[in-house]
Amino acid sequence: MSKFWNDTIRSLVPYVPGEQPKVSNLVKLNTNEHPLPPSKSVMEAIAAVQADDLRRYPDPESLNLRGAIASVESLSVGEVFVGNGSDEVLGLIFQGFLAGSDPLTVPAISYGFYPVWARLNGLQINPIPLRDDFSLDLEGFSKSSGPLLFANPNAPTGLSVSMAEIEWLLENNTDRLVVVDEAYFGFGSETAAPLIARYDNLLITRTLSKSHSLAGLRVGYALGDSTLIDGLVRIKDSFNSYPVDAIAQAAAAAAIRDVDWLTEASAVVVENREALAGALVERGFEVTASTANFLFVRHKNGGGKALFNRLRGEGLIVRRWDSESIQDWLRVTVGSTRQHKVLLDAIDRSLEAG
Amino acid sequence: MSKFWNDTIRSLVPYVPGEQPKVSNLVKLNTNEHPLPPSKSVMEAIAAVQADDLRRYPDPESLNLRGAIASVESLSVGEVFVGNGSDEVLGLIFQGFLAGSDPLTVPAISYGFYPVWARLNGLQINPIPLRDDFSLDLEGFSKSSGPLLFANPNAPTGLSVSMAEIEWLLENNTDRLVVVDEAYFGFGSETAAPLIARYDNLLITRTLSKSHSLAGLRVGYALGDSTLIDGLVRIKDSFNSYPVDAIAQAAAAAAIRDVDWLTEASAVVVENREALAGALVERGFEVTASTANFLFVRHKNGGGKALFNRLRGEGLIVRRWDSESIQDWLRVTVGSTRQHKVLLDAIDRSLEAG
Repeated sequence: MSKFWNDTIRSLVPYVPGEQPKVSNLVKLNTNEHPLPPSKSVMEAIAAVQADDLRRYPDPESLNLRGAIASVESLSVGEVFVGNGSDEVLGLIFQGFLAGSDPLTVPAISYGFYPVWARLNGLQINPIPLRDDFSLDLEGFSKSSGPLLFANPNAPTGLSVSMAEIEWLLENNTDRLVVVDEAYFGFGSETAAPLIARYDNLLITRTLSKSHSLAGLRVGYALGDSTLIDGLVRIKDSFNSYPVDAIAQAAAAAAIRDVDWLTEASAVVVENREALAGALVERGFEVTASTANFLFVRHKNGGGKALFNRLRGEGLIVRRWDSESIQDWLRVTVGSTRQHKVLLDAIDRSLEAG
Repeated sequence: MSKFWNDTIRSLVPYVPGEQPKVSNLVKLNTNEHPLPPSKSVMEAIAAVQADDLRRYPDPESLNLRGAIASVESLSVGEVFVGNGSDEVLGLIFQGFLAGSDPLTVPAISYGFYPVWARLNGLQINPIPLRDDFSLDLEGFSKSSGPLLFANPNAPTGLSVSMAEIEWLLENNTDRLVVVDEAYFGFGSETAAPLIARYDNLLITRTLSKSHSLAGLRVGYALGDSTLIDGLVRIKDSFNSYPVDAIAQAAAAAAIRDVDWLTEASAVVVENREALAGALVERGFEVTASTANFLFVRHKNGGGKALFNRLRGEGLIVRRWDSESIQDWLRVTVGSTRQHKVLLDAIDRSLEAG
């Protein structure tokens, strides 16, 4: 610690992301990376980058990328904001909309970064417990006050709510900002994007890290009424005018435009997910009805931490948390069929060893 | 404006960066981009990026890039922080060290983002007037209280202070954080980096945008005592864990390692700068003794705004500000000899037209 740290920095308990191990022969199913490589058009866009694109500043408005997103979503460019991953976009939403407000209502179990951003911005949170089946209690959300934030699908449960349920929430809370984190969009959940035209209190965040297999590129975006997007632009221009570099803008626009890749690659993830879910159920696991690119699973005999450690010992990394209500559950990224075979073999050995 | 904007967002007057025009036949000498393309090793590093590097999250610690910087600066990796441009690095310094402190002492004329970051973080600023010759009044800085921030070389004047002067300031203010923004490092100014070993109150920021001709890549860094760097890591991990994407990490590391490129490319900029300065002096301009990659100039007959507009009309963009004390001055990026010829011809026509 330095005497120059301010109170904010002293009080922080930073988010700890999933391990990014530097050894290469691991089966890495812990950070929800996509099993397929990104669209070929991404690599082509990168190969087309000229030295002069690096010499000059990038477009601070990212108009080409925002235009690509707007076109795919049937929105206007003014309803799209882009940033350095959806983490940055959410961080700016906390700074510009949530800081200074009433406590923020979030699911009691969700993305671990929410309470960290709240702390960073001096914001209290009001956690709403999940229902016993881990589903989101939107009635509980509606009965609270202040802004609302939830992930859809939620993490680490994988469960999602429908567009109709979100519309009910928006309709009954028109004076409250509702932020829907769609980081795991694209794998079977319904998006709330069509509601933007009707509700100026809806802000949706997305990332290309999961849906487009571009975790390494750091591009995320927000969709919402243009007055909300204008606010995000003001915050961005008061923090870092050029958060998305020239290569990332070009590569992300190419990825977004390749809608066939998204359809086909998502179908592979969904197929692998359902196959893995079936195989785990056969082995005595309870598996939530995930609409994300991961499964949330618990063996009927419990022992989540022991299984996690045995898998880790065999070079298989999944994710787990110590929170009491989910301590026996593991979150397993949907990988390739080859990775799933290695995982299932290791699980079989572990179950035999008891 | 949206009813969901908080007080922070409402109060902001965002920084306005230099125009990035989308038409291509302009002579763009307004945002201090480097006249030469970046090192060839940068393009090679980008070409070597694999689809799998994009599929996976980047190294959140950017160890390869930080190692390259540490090696060149004879520092340890723990004394180096990297971020999405020095704007993000400075933004995080405001959040983690300056917010909540006594007013921040800055030069009255300097980088326009300083007061914006201050406002974003609810921080008062204490502007110290430049001396009549535009030089920094470090005695004035030393007599103030609270943290200190200045650019060296300063913008838009181009003037710099020596390492010995900075050491005097550090020595006499060991209880105050001193942030030195070395965005324009590499073109003849002295760096304060060798002082890091002796002063734990010194934090230096740099960018690859100017020195390494990588404005499009968005990579900046901070150098300082490891306790200061640890604080920046905490803030980063509470805002956005992965601010530097995989391509930018690889490309920036390659750029930093090519120290010969930096030496040669900087020598070209310095040579072009001195030639342009001489040509402008011949034409009746006052020119400050810039150690940056721009010149700060005023014609003996004044008329800065009129000249700016005439140049703009001929497709030549430079930069100027309306502040009274510098309203007749223009900031001209050091460009190529070809660009300088176009500029000087346009100036000659303007002077003849009177």
